[in-house]
Amino acid sequence: MQIVFLFYDGMTALDAIGPYEVLSRLPGAVTRIAAIKAGPIKTCSGLTLFAESPLAEIDHADVLVVPGAGNATNLHKFPEVLEWIKAMHATTTWTTSVCTGSLILGAAGLLSGCPATTHWAVFDRLAALGAVPKHDRVVFSGKIVTAAGVSAGIDMALTLAARIAGDSVAQALQLGIEYDPEPPFNTGSVSKAPPALVEALHSRLMSRFKD
Amino acid sequence: MQIVFLFYDGMTALDAIGPYEVLSRLPGAVTRIAAIKAGPIKTCSGLTLFAESPLAEIDHADVLVVPGAGNATNLHKFPEVLEWIKAMHATTTWTTSVCTGSLILGAAGLLSGCPATTHWAVFDRLAALGAVPKHDRVVFSGKIVTAAGVSAGIDMALTLAARIAGDSVAQALQLGIEYDPEPPFNTGSVSKAPPALVEALHSRLMSRFKD
Repeated sequence: MQIVFLFYDGMTALDAIGPYEVLSRLPGAVTRIAAIKAGPIKTCSGLTLFAESPLAEIDHADVLVVPGAGNATNLHKFPEVLEWIKAMHATTTWTTSVCTGSLILGAAGLLSGCPATTHWAVFDRLAALGAVPKHDRVVFSGKIVTAAGVSAGIDMALTLAARIAGDSVAQALQLGIEYDPEPPFNTGSVSKAPPALVEALHSRLMSRFKD
Repeated sequence: MQIVFLFYDGMTALDAIGPYEVLSRLPGAVTRIAAIKAGPIKTCSGLTLFAESPLAEIDHADVLVVPGAGNATNLHKFPEVLEWIKAMHATTTWTTSVCTGSLILGAAGLLSGCPATTHWAVFDRLAALGAVPKHDRVVFSGKIVTAAGVSAGIDMALTLAARIAGDSVAQALQLGIEYDPEPPFNTGSVSKAPPALVEALHSRLMSRFKD
């Protein structure tokens, strides 16, 4: 089972590493990290990741994971990436995204009529891409699986792991990463955070989000 | 505020990237990634990370983050790392660990008489290092902060962010990464998972854990 992660400059590291830490441990998993160019990848918070394979080297993906970024829609500028996503999608059992990664799937034309989610701050952009926006943390729609912002990739990956390998494997993966979360605040989603906090953060995030 | 992450071959990527994604966004944060040798770092699940600085280049850390690994105690073989941790600890405001990273802090002699936690599978090793084992997800003891396994680093970082920059900053960070977890199973800790699952996974993990 070949699990392919799309890496790109400006991506959010945790969007990819959360799912990576879960899915790479599935029985029979072979992971590939693909990018426009193999080599160092600068993430949005400054950390350097590393991609081993140029896109052209990957001929199929059983699972494709597209992480998001503070400026994810910049990938519009790289039509070869969108073409590659479409080509991979034709080979996948599961095509997945985390955070604003769903906007990239949408730009590649994969979300037409498809229930999907994304980071709360760009939620209103899903409909224009043809998606049916859903306020769930993880949305399954046929073989397309989208997750909400950043940390939701962990929930997505564990849920997907259960679909792929069964509940008991996924339960062991969850115990292995000791995923019994205790968030210190009750502000992790727009439905729970104080409206003033949501508004202030939305302005701040959007000032950095380039179309 | 200089936030220093210790990277090393065999480390678990998510142990570091969870806290990185939170702490790097603190106002005034400057992050440094340090390793025995600057360059690519192969994590335990195969992903390559990248360290920019050899240990000797880092002269202080306001916050030190020591991630864990499937074979973390191998760092015993590198006394220069333990010496460096001790030297950094003398300069820190906060010295932190995630997962088996606390065994490294312990090996460096920092946990003597100190309440601390670690990954559940190696919990029984804390006492021999002089620590006072505590079954909490995040344990504050003076300026030492230890987190349970892998994903607990996110809870640790958000809790620490509140101590450093105040609740409202930490609440915004939590909303920014949309951390409103929905684990698919109730098996994320030894107190909740079925005993047979705990036992089977413990055997599997320990067969890979090198002293």
